[in-house]
Amino acid sequence: MSLWFTEKQTSSFGITAKVNRTLESENTDFQQLDMVETQEFGNMLLLDGMVMTTEKDEFVYHEMIAHVPLFTHPSPKNVLVVGGGDGGTIREVLKHSSVEKVTQVEIDGKVVEYSKKHLPHISCEYGNPRVELIIGDGFEHIIKSENRYDIILVDSTEPVGPAAGLFTKGFYAGIAKALKKDGIFVAQTDNPWFKADLIKNAIQDTKEIFPIARLYTCNIPTYPSGMWTFTMGSKVYDPLKVSIDKIFDINGKYYTPELHYASFVLPKFLQSLCK
Amino acid sequence: MSLWFTEKQTSSFGITAKVNRTLESENTDFQQLDMVETQEFGNMLLLDGMVMTTEKDEFVYHEMIAHVPLFTHPSPKNVLVVGGGDGGTIREVLKHSSVEKVTQVEIDGKVVEYSKKHLPHISCEYGNPRVELIIGDGFEHIIKSENRYDIILVDSTEPVGPAAGLFTKGFYAGIAKALKKDGIFVAQTDNPWFKADLIKNAIQDTKEIFPIARLYTCNIPTYPSGMWTFTMGSKVYDPLKVSIDKIFDINGKYYTPELHYASFVLPKFLQSLCK
Repeated sequence: MSLWFTEKQTSSFGITAKVNRTLESENTDFQQLDMVETQEFGNMLLLDGMVMTTEKDEFVYHEMIAHVPLFTHPSPKNVLVVGGGDGGTIREVLKHSSVEKVTQVEIDGKVVEYSKKHLPHISCEYGNPRVELIIGDGFEHIIKSENRYDIILVDSTEPVGPAAGLFTKGFYAGIAKALKKDGIFVAQTDNPWFKADLIKNAIQDTKEIFPIARLYTCNIPTYPSGMWTFTMGSKVYDPLKVSIDKIFDINGKYYTPELHYASFVLPKFLQSLCK
Repeated sequence: MSLWFTEKQTSSFGITAKVNRTLESENTDFQQLDMVETQEFGNMLLLDGMVMTTEKDEFVYHEMIAHVPLFTHPSPKNVLVVGGGDGGTIREVLKHSSVEKVTQVEIDGKVVEYSKKHLPHISCEYGNPRVELIIGDGFEHIIKSENRYDIILVDSTEPVGPAAGLFTKGFYAGIAKALKKDGIFVAQTDNPWFKADLIKNAIQDTKEIFPIARLYTCNIPTYPSGMWTFTMGSKVYDPLKVSIDKIFDINGKYYTPELHYASFVLPKFLQSLCK
């Protein structure tokens, strides 16, 4: 028997991947959680039928959500990660020795549990004394935080299901309050081919609250359209004015000093979404 | 009935698209040719079951294969396009008023015929007096050309089927001979996630023959992995040394003056393929 998993990324387009076996599945308190072993991408974590991460291409997302803002800030000490239960984002954040503490607020403890078991190279930093893992609601955590974080990374699922409260203007305002006076946030904001409105709203909302608002992109084969965007809001530091000499080797496979800047250079159709 | 087309981009991964209807299909002298109307991407041209072009995302490929080399050359007059039967590449080439003649050698006249009928916004420049369309073998045309072209664009299918003769070192040597002493070629060279060896060979072969050999990328949602590469070989002109003032507005949707340079900035894993 040949098993194929298909994710409908829109109502009329999707990806399909050969599945060797299902490693574990359950309906958690928040979402449908599946861990499958694929032929092409290794172990793959799915939430509500959408690919969240795979062993083969996870490095792109995790390096790009973390290092672009962390190198933009001259000395990030306190970092908050909302979501990101697979652990890949905190793994990258911890490569910055200036970071004293990463607080992670993941709503679904099962995602962490499954990732520890089936994605050991991604979840490898759970247990690091610099990491505080809170199983809870990221929005609530942000609302009660004030002037606390240098960096906030919103490593959430799509704005459906448990992440529906994210991607709203109130959320961005809450982030601004939770950040220190020179803080930076980055949120994953989906792809421009099928979710143009989401990006348009995210960048507009960010512009209204942060003096510096920028979009940057990367290529992730298992995500819709292969092009992924991140929205950055920064109170003081401009990612394009970072001195290249400050960017040390993070020993990664995607992010490079030159790509730090180039990832902000947008195709014309995407530029027009940001106006 | 709900019809879905699936392209297996590797033996264990692919894309799937809802098809409203098949517009036309036939087994030509060279390949299986299908034109389908998809819900998400409009009309879609398939060769041997692989997506060649779609109405929604064709602009990326065509702008990027054409404008990067044409702006690298200070005054391109004679341009050769190998393949590219849908017409999108010549459409972009003709935006450069310095171009006196585009010669296109497409092996399969049926591709041109279907594109004229079903992809009118892509094939719109057939009939332009600056275009000479030759239905024939691109390799043979190159072999008998000497010191003739300013630019050669290899807009071929994958290196299977009729395009198997392309992507060889002999082909690149032939291209060098067919080019003028300051000529430039660009070939589409697939994606780095599933075809790393193809890229590695293409860039190595190019380096052995051309003083300037570089890879650049773009995002195409319907192509494998969403990241596409082009290999450029240039005898004299460096694409990274083009003065940005020389790049005029091509009235496109992807290529911009800034992206001209940024498209050469490669992720680390792709850089290592080019060493």
